[in-house]
Amino acid sequence: MPFHRYRPFEDRVNVPVSDRSWPSARIEHAPLWVPVDLRDGNQALAEPMDTARKSRFFDLLVRTGFKEIEVGYPSASRTDFDFVRHLVSGGAVPHDVTPVVFTPARTDLIDRTFDSIAGLPRAVVHLYIATSPVWRDVVLGRDRREVWRTVREAAEHMARRAEALKSTGVRFQFSPETFNLTEPDFVLELCDGLTELWDASPDRPVTHNLPATVEIATPNVYADQIEYVHRHLSRRDSVILSVHPHNDRGTGVACAELAVLAGAQRVEGCLFGNGERTGNVDLVTLAMNLYAQGVDPMVDFGDIDAVRETVEHCNRLPVHPRHPYAGELVHTAFSGTHQDAISKGLAHRVGHPDEPWQVPYLPIDPADIGRTYEAVIRVNSQSGKGGTAYLLRTHHGIDLPERMRADFSRVVQEATDTSGREMSPKELYELFRATYLMEGEVRLHDGTAYEEVPGVHRFVGTLECDERVGDHEGTGTSPLSAFVDALAGAGYAVEVVDFAEDGTAAYAECRVNGRTTAWGAGVGPAAAVQAVLSALNRAMR
Amino acid sequence: MPFHRYRPFEDRVNVPVSDRSWPSARIEHAPLWVPVDLRDGNQALAEPMDTARKSRFFDLLVRTGFKEIEVGYPSASRTDFDFVRHLVSGGAVPHDVTPVVFTPARTDLIDRTFDSIAGLPRAVVHLYIATSPVWRDVVLGRDRREVWRTVREAAEHMARRAEALKSTGVRFQFSPETFNLTEPDFVLELCDGLTELWDASPDRPVTHNLPATVEIATPNVYADQIEYVHRHLSRRDSVILSVHPHNDRGTGVACAELAVLAGAQRVEGCLFGNGERTGNVDLVTLAMNLYAQGVDPMVDFGDIDAVRETVEHCNRLPVHPRHPYAGELVHTAFSGTHQDAISKGLAHRVGHPDEPWQVPYLPIDPADIGRTYEAVIRVNSQSGKGGTAYLLRTHHGIDLPERMRADFSRVVQEATDTSGREMSPKELYELFRATYLMEGEVRLHDGTAYEEVPGVHRFVGTLECDERVGDHEGTGTSPLSAFVDALAGAGYAVEVVDFAEDGTAAYAECRVNGRTTAWGAGVGPAAAVQAVLSALNRAMR
Repeated sequence: MPFHRYRPFEDRVNVPVSDRSWPSARIEHAPLWVPVDLRDGNQALAEPMDTARKSRFFDLLVRTGFKEIEVGYPSASRTDFDFVRHLVSGGAVPHDVTPVVFTPARTDLIDRTFDSIAGLPRAVVHLYIATSPVWRDVVLGRDRREVWRTVREAAEHMARRAEALKSTGVRFQFSPETFNLTEPDFVLELCDGLTELWDASPDRPVTHNLPATVEIATPNVYADQIEYVHRHLSRRDSVILSVHPHNDRGTGVACAELAVLAGAQRVEGCLFGNGERTGNVDLVTLAMNLYAQGVDPMVDFGDIDAVRETVEHCNRLPVHPRHPYAGELVHTAFSGTHQDAISKGLAHRVGHPDEPWQVPYLPIDPADIGRTYEAVIRVNSQSGKGGTAYLLRTHHGIDLPERMRADFSRVVQEATDTSGREMSPKELYELFRATYLMEGEVRLHDGTAYEEVPGVHRFVGTLECDERVGDHEGTGTSPLSAFVDALAGAGYAVEVVDFAEDGTAAYAECRVNGRTTAWGAGVGPAAAVQAVLSALNRAMR
Repeated sequence: MPFHRYRPFEDRVNVPVSDRSWPSARIEHAPLWVPVDLRDGNQALAEPMDTARKSRFFDLLVRTGFKEIEVGYPSASRTDFDFVRHLVSGGAVPHDVTPVVFTPARTDLIDRTFDSIAGLPRAVVHLYIATSPVWRDVVLGRDRREVWRTVREAAEHMARRAEALKSTGVRFQFSPETFNLTEPDFVLELCDGLTELWDASPDRPVTHNLPATVEIATPNVYADQIEYVHRHLSRRDSVILSVHPHNDRGTGVACAELAVLAGAQRVEGCLFGNGERTGNVDLVTLAMNLYAQGVDPMVDFGDIDAVRETVEHCNRLPVHPRHPYAGELVHTAFSGTHQDAISKGLAHRVGHPDEPWQVPYLPIDPADIGRTYEAVIRVNSQSGKGGTAYLLRTHHGIDLPERMRADFSRVVQEATDTSGREMSPKELYELFRATYLMEGEVRLHDGTAYEEVPGVHRFVGTLECDERVGDHEGTGTSPLSAFVDALAGAGYAVEVVDFAEDGTAAYAECRVNGRTTAWGAGVGPAAAVQAVLSALNRAMR
């Protein structure tokens, strides 16, 4: 492949760093999350959302707890404009939620943007322009001075319009698009210039939003770039430093996290990482990553499947089965060792419910996001005794003794190796029944056991042995040993090696005629006797 | 959400770092990529691969250029064992590819593992055991000394079996599973102990593979952990330091990249990030990320769609439309500003084909991975004039003049706003025809223009005007101005404001009767005249 056609990032942009502090920092509280699904995400859809879908998405975002929401690019299309008007006229914006609208640096489009928000109690008007050398040269045909002039004139016009729109508390946001390819001193020139022009203050801060429009380097480089701006911005306490990572290199989440370590206070992204090309950074993953560190994510994904369904409906795009936290398979273990560890971890929790969560292979408790444990353990040929035992126990009350698990696991493996398919809990139970609850050549027609004198049990019954029917009896220290004694009388030397019972069934491992050993199981009133009979029959096969 | 149930990573594991060097490092060559699709990836599938699928996957990996490939967990299932035997007996392993087989620390399973590789010229036998406190306490029930004893006994048995299998050049690999939750000094104790026990040397190095079994922290923390081990390992030149990131926090790619910066030489992962739960790190993204930096990735994804189709067939799982590099939508722009920038960037390249690639919004040239440009620009209500113009030009040879693009863009936007749907290039062309090539009240029945004397053109023809048919003629400095003069004679004062032609059509913007202005187009031998007529008719509507 012609890799020589590309240049390393350090040939494309200068990243001035001497002593960085972000690698030693910790994230101790959530940044302000700002979903841009209704604008940046929507622009990336083959079929953009209609008003019904946008409304449904907006309501979801409000319900989830987002407090600042980019609602559209009103000058880009009639649909976008109409939706913002729909929010205003419908009174759909709660008092603690601030909508953001997006505009390029053109007077007529700024006017249309301000027209859209008239009537809102508060809004952020978000101005963008691409600032990096390639964009300036190839796309805009403007040099640095001309770009600054365009930005300044747009910003002045925005300030005038905001002044005129007194009933709406307007704040300002600026994005130097392609920030990560822009000269750092030019970024500062633009941002500081606007901070001053808009007269930002701690009471009415400006948002400077620094996009990784297209990812160009490992995420530590983005963190270095953010830390540089964070340290050198003027009127730092009047600026909300925001980031807007994309995911071209598959490191959008990392960029956002390292940027927060580096001083970013606000993160723009989309739910499940929708957005142009590879998408915007995924806010669900970011929030849940904080959650899993014991940090309040400030949004609620307690019913993550409902969130996913709404987003899939609105975007008409699927969430991948392996998508962090929300994917269909991400809490599932097929591998035997994983299943075994999870079973032990869950069992351990029963005795220690208040300990911090630390179940192997489950970064969070699926129940916290509304998932049941049903999908956690699934059995196929890669699985071991732990998974099978777990499913039989939780779905059918069958609590196999430890050594019987290994025995049944071999049966399951044979079946899954042959079929190449997964087995459901129901199929496992059917296989369990077919294996251990089958009748064989020795059958009990009827029988009863009673305590003759304290400590001495007698069994009396009719056995069919290889089609010969006869009455047999025996005695022992328990009903079971009395039955074994009766079997001896019928010609079967049976030794019960292991025996267990739970509320559902009895399980017996028997050595027959001093040689073959097998497991059997029984259910019903004579479960113990049936378990021994089943083991006997299986041993003789 | 009950975030209090979770603890920050620093309460779970001690990460000793004083002066880290990885944030300043650069990746200048590719690490050794080791796909574990046939083992770790396969263990994560509801329906594990059968031999046919495994063979197809193995052949793909070989063809792509991978030199070390984990081929299975032979003691885990008959399918796995049989597949390794199938590789051996079928001679499917090229001379420059080394298979890896995976085994837990149990003598009988190690024996089965060695049985599987007999006959291979070379192999890596990969021993793993979980080493972190939670796993030791809850899953294994062994303390540090007991874990080391288990590992040592297994390693000794492996050494004996390797010694006996002289015809196979066996190397060793060790994975302290759950490395990222394990005490760093215990990791070193185990790794250094094995380096010595197996007598590793620069000629026959041992691979120590450090998994982020479940991601627990931001990726910089993993890098710190790797750098610590990298710096403190004994016999460093006899060790290949390997990493095995998962993706629970969506930062698997970042973990791998930062780990390579921190000293890792080898990366295990799966194509497109398959693997238990959220998957293993995606080797395709990692390799292409290097490629996009001008570094030889050492593997070939020149036909990425063929790779994707094979992997989707084998795993029976989709690759997401937004998956980096390979997703269906990742080279696509719907947004107007993006389309405009891409069009300009591609146009710029025509004059500068040897410049390094730097087309806006396209991190790599889609052609390098076998993609056409067809899907790069797609038009819906979010799109602008650039995208429409690009599609008309590349698909239908219609090269609209700059100002006509804006005119037609409004028509397109009206249509897409109303339909809510995307428009294909063919639909755009039909809309262009319906808009600009329609007949109106003024029609030309026949006509001809000729140069009467040098510099003086005469037009003679029959015009139907509002159902009145009459002959008209006119003169001018060009055939077109002669036609305009004839129109004036028929009562239509037409001024051609803008005019352009390409090989396909002619385009004219006309002001009619000093008032209304409109664009028109024409095709065929009298394209120019038809364009003016069309503009005239549209202006009068």
